[in-house]
Amino acid sequence: MILALAGGVGGAKLAAGLARVLPPEDLVIAVNTGDDFEHLGLHVSPDLDTVMYTLAGIANPETGWGQADETWSFMGALSRLGGPDWFKLGDRDLATNVERTRRLRGGETLSEVTRDLCARLGVRHAVVPMSDDPVRTVVHTDRGELEFQHYFVRERCEPRVERLEYRGAESAHPSAALREALRGSDLAGVLFCPSNPYLSIAPILAVPCVREAIGDRAVAVSPIIAGRAVKGPAAKIMDELGIAPSALEIARYYRGTVRALVIDRADAALAAPIEALGIRPVLEDTLMAGDSDRQRLARACLAVLEQVRA
Amino acid sequence: MILALAGGVGGAKLAAGLARVLPPEDLVIAVNTGDDFEHLGLHVSPDLDTVMYTLAGIANPETGWGQADETWSFMGALSRLGGPDWFKLGDRDLATNVERTRRLRGGETLSEVTRDLCARLGVRHAVVPMSDDPVRTVVHTDRGELEFQHYFVRERCEPRVERLEYRGAESAHPSAALREALRGSDLAGVLFCPSNPYLSIAPILAVPCVREAIGDRAVAVSPIIAGRAVKGPAAKIMDELGIAPSALEIARYYRGTVRALVIDRADAALAAPIEALGIRPVLEDTLMAGDSDRQRLARACLAVLEQVRA
Repeated sequence: MILALAGGVGGAKLAAGLARVLPPEDLVIAVNTGDDFEHLGLHVSPDLDTVMYTLAGIANPETGWGQADETWSFMGALSRLGGPDWFKLGDRDLATNVERTRRLRGGETLSEVTRDLCARLGVRHAVVPMSDDPVRTVVHTDRGELEFQHYFVRERCEPRVERLEYRGAESAHPSAALREALRGSDLAGVLFCPSNPYLSIAPILAVPCVREAIGDRAVAVSPIIAGRAVKGPAAKIMDELGIAPSALEIARYYRGTVRALVIDRADAALAAPIEALGIRPVLEDTLMAGDSDRQRLARACLAVLEQVRA
Repeated sequence: MILALAGGVGGAKLAAGLARVLPPEDLVIAVNTGDDFEHLGLHVSPDLDTVMYTLAGIANPETGWGQADETWSFMGALSRLGGPDWFKLGDRDLATNVERTRRLRGGETLSEVTRDLCARLGVRHAVVPMSDDPVRTVVHTDRGELEFQHYFVRERCEPRVERLEYRGAESAHPSAALREALRGSDLAGVLFCPSNPYLSIAPILAVPCVREAIGDRAVAVSPIIAGRAVKGPAAKIMDELGIAPSALEIARYYRGTVRALVIDRADAALAAPIEALGIRPVLEDTLMAGDSDRQRLARACLAVLEQVRA
């Protein structure tokens, strides 16, 4: 069984590739919930939904988040009423959030709700929240402390990041499915999808016992290609934190936890310095333009996991 | 100044007619909130919204409730997710409910929220809830006690009504705007719109001090024409309560509170028995097919209010 840790768009793509090449019983995808927040009275779980929609084949291919063939009547009407319209919730996407919130208020856990929503959308692989307890990524910036989505969406990542905090992580518990995956004798490998290390993978690793259970056996895929993030603010944040945006720094960040780092062929020159850190570099085409790319990269990652285990 | 009491579709039509012939400062429309309920974690106010949408000119002309040019992506997605889909909330209508709920949770009153939503939708006349306190119409039926919307929408008014209860009314206060209208020295008349007497007008009259302040000076428009309700379950409920559905029984129900009852010309034969009750019958064409009908009936009602006052 393979455990994949994933955040938003990039992670969801590789997770979808894994789901195409592995049967449901051989894959658990643990998803970052540090981006979750309360908005319009709703419990919004952006990463869980991105992974769920991507696996269900209903993700918006242009944005990576939200649903394909979405309509926006709700947002238009909300704007007209003077409501907070900076966070875009499509009409269909809204149903996910309303239904999740309704069930959470009824006493179900986020794991239970997610499992059921996935089943309804035809997702057969396990998409599980990293925790059922609230963990909230807080971005400390030159404009003060910001909730993650306020930083990410409302402020368009413009404030300068000084420090990241995974609030609540210290008292959170891994979700039952994540705990079970980590403890299971059949765990054949842990893969960090090409998600933002600081915003997507780190919150998962910050949940007590997760990093310890993973030990040093993970394989990661760099989200940085040729010094740039495929999507999102990873490179900008690294820059602001005084870290040169490069796959080498990703290797340094994950050092002690990963045995191999899959980097793009464009970064072949970084193979030697990554190897010098004691991490095995693996060159692949890591850009995932379509379904076949996702499957190809998924197969490559599974091969690396196998080699690492051997 | 005229105070109009209104419920859903029929009441909203006459209220819209009044709003066309009276300036904003001369009209207060107090709306039934006994139909309000919590659904999907939202505070839904069906009658307030019907009146607001009708006055804003965005009501769905086919249904009478909801918005024109509505889309239904949310409901479709909610059904797919297995959520409760018996109460139809269009995408635009949903924005009203989400925004209202968000503000109520933030501590605003229903009156404040309603005033602001109306302003956003260009409604310049005062549309006010009967109360900012929860009053919930409960329908006691042969299938047990039902929340109003469960009876009305989910069960399609099929259970046999045994008794109606306006739960919470005894400890509710009239909204400030309704109280002010009732107390004002410039109150020139009180009009009961052709809404369901038992489900729309009675809950308003059940709020302490409202009936007392109105005294016997109201004018009502019968929602029953030739023994049938123009819309809704009024006739069916009267029948189940052992009351013959007719404008005469509407007169009997309002006796002591109304001085005149506007009935349809089709009920001319009831004029004499209504007069015998001490209520002045006024024959009009009470069916409102379009905007000119609404204005005509509004003008007729204003004339009756003037005569009653003299």
